[in-house]
Amino acid sequence: MSSSLYIHNLLSAYRSGQLTPTSLVEELLERSARYTDHAIWITPPQREHLLIRTRELEGQDMEGLPLYGVPFAIKDNMDLVDVPTTCACPDFAYTPKNSAMVVQKLIDAGAIAMGKTNLDQFATGLNGTRSPYGACRNAFAPDYISGGSSAGSAVAVALGLASFSLGTDTAGSGRVPAAFNNLVGLKPTCGLLSTSGVVPACRSLDSVSIFALSAQDAQRVFAAALGEDTSDPYSRTIQPHGFDFGRAPRFRFGVPAAKDLNFFGDDQYGHLFDAAVTRLESLGGERVELDFAPFLETARLLYGGPWVAERYHAIRSFINTYPDALFPVTRDITLGGAKPLAADAFAALYRLRELKRKCDCIWQQVDCVLTPTAGTIFTRAQLLADPMARNTDLGYYTNFMNLLDYAAVAVPAGFRVDGLPFGVTLFAPAHQDVPLLRLAERWQLTDSVPNGAVETMPPPVETVPAAVSSGQVRVAVVGAHLSGLPLNHQITSRGGRLISDTSTAPCYRLYALTDGKRPGLVRVAHGGKAIGCEVWEMSAAAFGSFVNGIPAPLGIGTVELFDGSHVNGFICEGVGITDAVDITDFKGWRAYLRSIQG
Amino acid sequence: MSSSLYIHNLLSAYRSGQLTPTSLVEELLERSARYTDHAIWITPPQREHLLIRTRELEGQDMEGLPLYGVPFAIKDNMDLVDVPTTCACPDFAYTPKNSAMVVQKLIDAGAIAMGKTNLDQFATGLNGTRSPYGACRNAFAPDYISGGSSAGSAVAVALGLASFSLGTDTAGSGRVPAAFNNLVGLKPTCGLLSTSGVVPACRSLDSVSIFALSAQDAQRVFAAALGEDTSDPYSRTIQPHGFDFGRAPRFRFGVPAAKDLNFFGDDQYGHLFDAAVTRLESLGGERVELDFAPFLETARLLYGGPWVAERYHAIRSFINTYPDALFPVTRDITLGGAKPLAADAFAALYRLRELKRKCDCIWQQVDCVLTPTAGTIFTRAQLLADPMARNTDLGYYTNFMNLLDYAAVAVPAGFRVDGLPFGVTLFAPAHQDVPLLRLAERWQLTDSVPNGAVETMPPPVETVPAAVSSGQVRVAVVGAHLSGLPLNHQITSRGGRLISDTSTAPCYRLYALTDGKRPGLVRVAHGGKAIGCEVWEMSAAAFGSFVNGIPAPLGIGTVELFDGSHVNGFICEGVGITDAVDITDFKGWRAYLRSIQG
Repeated sequence: MSSSLYIHNLLSAYRSGQLTPTSLVEELLERSARYTDHAIWITPPQREHLLIRTRELEGQDMEGLPLYGVPFAIKDNMDLVDVPTTCACPDFAYTPKNSAMVVQKLIDAGAIAMGKTNLDQFATGLNGTRSPYGACRNAFAPDYISGGSSAGSAVAVALGLASFSLGTDTAGSGRVPAAFNNLVGLKPTCGLLSTSGVVPACRSLDSVSIFALSAQDAQRVFAAALGEDTSDPYSRTIQPHGFDFGRAPRFRFGVPAAKDLNFFGDDQYGHLFDAAVTRLESLGGERVELDFAPFLETARLLYGGPWVAERYHAIRSFINTYPDALFPVTRDITLGGAKPLAADAFAALYRLRELKRKCDCIWQQVDCVLTPTAGTIFTRAQLLADPMARNTDLGYYTNFMNLLDYAAVAVPAGFRVDGLPFGVTLFAPAHQDVPLLRLAERWQLTDSVPNGAVETMPPPVETVPAAVSSGQVRVAVVGAHLSGLPLNHQITSRGGRLISDTSTAPCYRLYALTDGKRPGLVRVAHGGKAIGCEVWEMSAAAFGSFVNGIPAPLGIGTVELFDGSHVNGFICEGVGITDAVDITDFKGWRAYLRSIQG
Repeated sequence: MSSSLYIHNLLSAYRSGQLTPTSLVEELLERSARYTDHAIWITPPQREHLLIRTRELEGQDMEGLPLYGVPFAIKDNMDLVDVPTTCACPDFAYTPKNSAMVVQKLIDAGAIAMGKTNLDQFATGLNGTRSPYGACRNAFAPDYISGGSSAGSAVAVALGLASFSLGTDTAGSGRVPAAFNNLVGLKPTCGLLSTSGVVPACRSLDSVSIFALSAQDAQRVFAAALGEDTSDPYSRTIQPHGFDFGRAPRFRFGVPAAKDLNFFGDDQYGHLFDAAVTRLESLGGERVELDFAPFLETARLLYGGPWVAERYHAIRSFINTYPDALFPVTRDITLGGAKPLAADAFAALYRLRELKRKCDCIWQQVDCVLTPTAGTIFTRAQLLADPMARNTDLGYYTNFMNLLDYAAVAVPAGFRVDGLPFGVTLFAPAHQDVPLLRLAERWQLTDSVPNGAVETMPPPVETVPAAVSSGQVRVAVVGAHLSGLPLNHQITSRGGRLISDTSTAPCYRLYALTDGKRPGLVRVAHGGKAIGCEVWEMSAAAFGSFVNGIPAPLGIGTVELFDGSHVNGFICEGVGITDAVDITDFKGWRAYLRSIQG
C-alpha cells in the first residue's frame, strides 16, 4: 500500500504510529527506483544518509516541527550541505559547506531532504530538456516535456517521491512544470524566501519556488521557509497582505482579453481555460477583461532585453574559461548576455518602469488575475525541433511576473482528453502570497480530485495557520457610516470592504444624538436590544485615519455582535446622550431614518 | 533702493502696492546687467517678454497664486516654452514647444521665469567651469568656482537676480552651488518633482532641485512644484513624512565619525563644521557618531560604476554623431559610459542593494544626518589644474544621496575669514523633505543673518503651509499607557513619540475600573476636574493597530485638553464604571497608584 504524501496525511500517520520516517523513506526509495528513466535526479536519494536523518528524527518530539518527517526534493542549483551543487553542468559542480538558508529552515522544521533534482542547465529554460543528466520526462506521458527549469523537482512530487520540492523561478520555472505535472506551484513574492546559497540566474529577479500537491501544503512550506536574510540584498520582510480575496465571498479577478490569449493551436487548453474562468466565477469572482498588451511587452523584455546579462554575470568567469562545458543552447543564450551595454540595461530599466506603471493600473479594478499557466504543452520532439521558439511559447504567460514584482500561484485545472494536465495561474501584487494560496485552496477543495500523477486521495480539508497577518482591522458601524448613508464614503474611500450585515448582541440601547445626524450606541447591563449593524474591514492605516476623524461624543471601542464575537465598533460617551432621544425600539438607524422621513 | 527678494517680502510689497511685477522686473534687469562677467545666463532675461508676463500678472488677482510675481531662474537643461534648451552645448540646442511640467506648475502659481542659466555641460560636474558660455563665477569671490552643475541658477539667486531657481541634482548639483553661494538648496526625494521636459543626466537618479534664500521660501516653491506625473516613469507621489523632527523639541542626528570627515586641508571648513554640530545640538538634537564608510563607498559607485552609462545613453546618438560638439572633459566622461557592459551594471546594482541595506540601518538610530555640503572650496585655477580629481573631492559628501534614495537640504552655515561661505547638508530618508526643510528653517531663524550675497535682511519669521501631511496621529493617554507604566510599550513599540505631559480640560471624572489595572475617563457636564495625561504621536497605521488592541469598556474618542484643544484620547463606556471607584480627586492615575502602593 502506498502512503499518501499530503503533509496532513503524513503527520497523522506519524502521530498515530502507522508510519515512521524510516519506513516512509524505505517506501520512497523503492518508488524512486521505478522512475530512473525519468531523469528526475542529479543526486538521487541515498539510503544510508537518509536513514541517519530518519533515526535522528525518530529521537525527536514531533511537536514544534511543522514538517516532521516530510520528504522534499531540492533543485540542483541550491545548496545542500556536503552534496554537490551542479546546476546541471558537471564541470561547474562544487560541494557546499552549508545548506542554502531556505533549505536549512525546512530541515530545521523537520523535513527530510531526499536529493537534488535535474534542471534546465543554469535554470535557463522552461522545458526540462536542457540537461546533460537527461531530458526530464513528464509524469503523465514520458514523450512529453516535464516543463522546466525546475523539471525534476516537479516530477519528483508528481510521481510521489517527495511531498514537496523547492525550485527556483525567474521566468516561469516554478509554474510551467507545475502545470505540466498537475501540481500547485507557488512563485512567491521575490525576496520573501532567501536566495543565499542559490546559484543566481537573474539575481535581481530570482525567487525560490515551492511545488506541492495542494495549496494547503504550499502554505505550510511557505510559512516554514519564510524569513528575512540580511546577507541577501534582495531579501525582504513579508508585509501584511491586506484584503483576503482568497476567503472573501466576493472578489474581482482579471482575465486577458480574447485578443491577447494564445493557445498555440491547442483548442483543448483553450476550452479548459474557459472552464476555469467559469469556475472562478462560481467561487464568487467577478470577471474583468484586461488589455494584456503591456504584460506581454514586459514578458518580451526578459529575454529580448538586457536581463540575460545577469545570467552571464552569474557565471561570467566560468563560461569565459570553459565555454564548452555548457550545453550549446545554454551557452548561446548566456553568452548573448555578454553583448548588451550598461546603457542598454538602463534603457530597458526605464522601459520596465513605464510598463510597470501601466500594468499596475489593473489593481484598481481587480484583486487578482487568472491566466493559463502555459498556452499548450509540447512533446520532447516538438520542443527540440525549435528549442528557442518553443521555449518562448512556454513563457508567454509567465515571463512578466518577476519583472513586475508580482506573486503567483499555479494550480491544476483539469486534463486534455489524452490525459495531459492543464494548469492556471493566479497572480496578485507583491506580498499577497497568502490570499493567492487561499484562493487556490478553495479552488482545489471545490474540485476534490487527486493531485500529481500517482496520489489517489484528494487534498485533506484542514485549516493551516496563516504565514502572515492580513494587517486588516474590522469595525462595526451602526449609523451614518452604513452602506448608502452619508458618511459611508469615509470607509469606502479608505478601501474598506463590507464583511457582513448583522446586528449587535442584545445588550445595547440606541440614541439619536441632538445633531440629528448620528446615533449613539450605548451598552447597558439590563434592557438592551440587538441593533442592526454592518461590519467593515480596512487596513490598520485606514482604520487609524478613520478613527482620527470621528468627532465627540462618539468613539471606537469594542462592540459585541449577535454571534457573541467582539469587534471594534462605535461607542458613545455618556455625556453625549444627555438630551438624546432613545430610539432603541427601531432596532437600527435605518428604520429610525425611515420613520422620520415617512 | 533694492527690493528684498524673500518671497514673503515680495508678496507683502505687492499686496501693499509698494511694488508691481513690472517695477520689480525693471529693477532686476538693471541688477542683472551688473553681473555680465559672472557667466550666469545662457538665455538672459529678455525685457520685452518679461513685460508681457508682468502685465498679464497685473491683470490677475494675487489670491490663489502663491508665487505671484516671484522671479525665478531655470537651469538650461530644463524646457521653457519657445526658449532654446542648450544643456550648455550649443550644437545640442533645441527649442521646446512646451515648458517642463515643473516649470509650468511654477508659472501657473504666478512665478516669473527670468531666463535660462549656465551649467556644467549636460549637468556633468560639480564645479561650474565646464561651459562654453564661460566659467560661472562665485557670488562672493569671482576667482572662486560657483559650484555646479547648477552654477548659474545658484549665482542668480545669490546675487539677487531671482528669488529662487530650479536646478537639477544627480550627484550634488543642487547642493554644492548652494553651499558656495550661501543659499538653501533642496535636493528633494527623487520622483517628487516631475522630470518631464528635463534633459536626463542619470535618469534613474535625477531630481529637480530648488535654490532659495531661505528654507521657508524653498518650502513654498516645493509645495507649488510637487505633483505626480504619469508620463514620467520615475515620478512618485509624496508620502506622509512621519515624525516631524524639524519641529520636535528633541531629535537625534548623525554625524560622520572623525575618521570619515575630510576637509582636504581646509581647517576653517573643519572648524565651521564643528560649530554647526554644536549649533544643531543647541536646537535639541542629540548627536550620534556614524561609521560613514558605506556612504563613502556608495558615493564612489556613482562615477566609478556603470551609472555614467545613463549619461551616455541620454545623448547617445548626439555624442556618437558629433563628439567634437562637447567640452573635452564632458566628452571623455560621457564616452566612458559607452564602455561598461550590462553585466557590470547589474553587478553594481547588486552592490548598491548591499550598501543601501547597510546605510539604511542608521535610521534606527537617528532622524537625520548632518554633514558638510563640501569639504572645501577651490579657486577656478585650482579646479582647472586637475578638473577630475578636484571635482571628485567636491562630491565627497553628496554623491551617495540619490543612489540611496534620500532627501537632502543644503543650508548656509557661516563664513571663512576670507568671506567665502560654508554650508552643511541635512539628509533623511525619502519623503522626509518637509521635516528637513523645517529643521533648516529653525536653523536659519536662530541665526538670523542675511542669505545669498547681496540680500540685506534676514529671512522673515512666518509660517508656511505644509506641502504634505505628517500622517501622524496624536492620542492622549491617562492610565497604564503613561510613560513607565505597564502598557506604555504598546505605544513605544509602535514608534510612538511623547509630545507633551499635560492635563485634560477640567470636565472629566476618573474611575479605577474593577480590574484594578486601568482607569476610565468620563466627561461630565458638571463637577469635572483636570486629569493628568500625556499626548503621544504615532503613524496612522500604528494608531489603527493600537486602537484595535484596546479592550472594553475603554475606547478611543475625543478628549479636550487643558488648553482647549481636542485630541484623540481614551474614553470609557458608561456601563464600565458601574462598580468602579471614583478617583477624580487624585487628579491622575499616577497619584492614585502612589496612594495604593503607599
